[in-house]
Amino acid sequence: MTITILGSGNVATHLGEAFHKAGHQILQVYSRNKANANALASVLSAVAIDSLGEVTNQADLYLIAVPDQAIQGVAERLPSAIKGVVVHCSGATHSAILGHFPHYGVLYPVQSLRKNIPTSLDKVPFGIEGNDLVSTDLLTQLMQPLTLQSFLCSSEQRLALHIAAVFANNFSNVLFQIAFDVLQEQNLSFDLLKPIVLETAQNVQKKSPKEVQTGPAIRGDIETIKKHLQFLTKNPNWLKIYQQLTQEITRNKS
Amino acid sequence: MTITILGSGNVATHLGEAFHKAGHQILQVYSRNKANANALASVLSAVAIDSLGEVTNQADLYLIAVPDQAIQGVAERLPSAIKGVVVHCSGATHSAILGHFPHYGVLYPVQSLRKNIPTSLDKVPFGIEGNDLVSTDLLTQLMQPLTLQSFLCSSEQRLALHIAAVFANNFSNVLFQIAFDVLQEQNLSFDLLKPIVLETAQNVQKKSPKEVQTGPAIRGDIETIKKHLQFLTKNPNWLKIYQQLTQEITRNKS
Repeated sequence: MTITILGSGNVATHLGEAFHKAGHQILQVYSRNKANANALASVLSAVAIDSLGEVTNQADLYLIAVPDQAIQGVAERLPSAIKGVVVHCSGATHSAILGHFPHYGVLYPVQSLRKNIPTSLDKVPFGIEGNDLVSTDLLTQLMQPLTLQSFLCSSEQRLALHIAAVFANNFSNVLFQIAFDVLQEQNLSFDLLKPIVLETAQNVQKKSPKEVQTGPAIRGDIETIKKHLQFLTKNPNWLKIYQQLTQEITRNKS
Repeated sequence: MTITILGSGNVATHLGEAFHKAGHQILQVYSRNKANANALASVLSAVAIDSLGEVTNQADLYLIAVPDQAIQGVAERLPSAIKGVVVHCSGATHSAILGHFPHYGVLYPVQSLRKNIPTSLDKVPFGIEGNDLVSTDLLTQLMQPLTLQSFLCSSEQRLALHIAAVFANNFSNVLFQIAFDVLQEQNLSFDLLKPIVLETAQNVQKKSPKEVQTGPAIRGDIETIKKHLQFLTKNPNWLKIYQQLTQEITRNKS
């Protein structure tokens, strides 16, 4: 398959390398910043370009891997004669943003990919969306050798998945940050919580979150909750978060 | 060391087995429920009792491992002639609740121990508090061969640690539950998020939560946040949690 990659960031790098390794031919790597385009293109034996006017209309796949707010601008300036499949990689962007191409879709990795952190893509679920059979077939064929975890999903499902990932990843991380700060105030190290953080993640690998919920809220241990709220009064934001999440656990119980 | 264990639940079972294995002599196991006392006592080669009047005053250590609200009742009905060290295992209970004994303290495991799930205690941090050198020395000697992770901490530090654990464990688990429900509404499996949940926990093992924060809030990606809020309007509780945690991430940024 011949592929042009638009972007040189985290997703462009990870997918570009995986496609290259799988034997596909990366024709071009585009970035507004020529040095970035060069850096990735040289690894992928591709041509670096910094103008969208130079994009070939001969590729089988165009991978738009740029920040969400830049997708539309890139898509509008691609050659109008493109017959290949044009995809973006965003969780929260509707596929219709690419609706002026005959074949278009989405390739959404359910994982935070970062350039400098090697990630084995075979463990990353990829949400695939295509506007027609040509697109879904091409994307499915492309991804099947790379990961067993690819699955078809609509733009609405993908948005839900993106939101769920924000709760499960971004938001649990900020809870770790609060825990970090609570401990630091008492001269205690976050190291003390590292085992329980890992255990929490491991618990939901085999059982549902509901089955493994523990703590004062699920036990209905009002006395302990009162002590915690008392302790947190000095930080109204943390107090509100504590109350909100305690209420959510209690609500699930009933 | 000779030990009497008050309680037959999760912590009593895990610590009792670890002490027994380490060569200490478990004299008695107390439970209000004789069958429960028998079950644990037989594993530990100890005598099962179901009345606090039968508790010996000759043990070196009395481990009170009962629900928080039952600690005081048990402590008040122990023999007044006890000279050994009396400890409870609660995160949120002040050690002063045992202040009528000459030697007292706390042994607090920073992990959810469950009876039927084998847990290697050598990876569990234990917060140790003693009212005097006799207590802290005994507890330190007891725990050092079992775990490299034991540390001295005051009742106030322990309360902070307990609260931090609630944020890091109980509250991140309810976020997983929300993610689970968001996906289920769209006929998607929580399996899709299992890799990212593990990655989130692994990310904070080597770097601080602040360093690994990702997502629309930390990027200041208002457009994506708007789409997410729009999607969540049908569930006001989730919406409030989303807003609160987004605000917390944004606050940390500045």
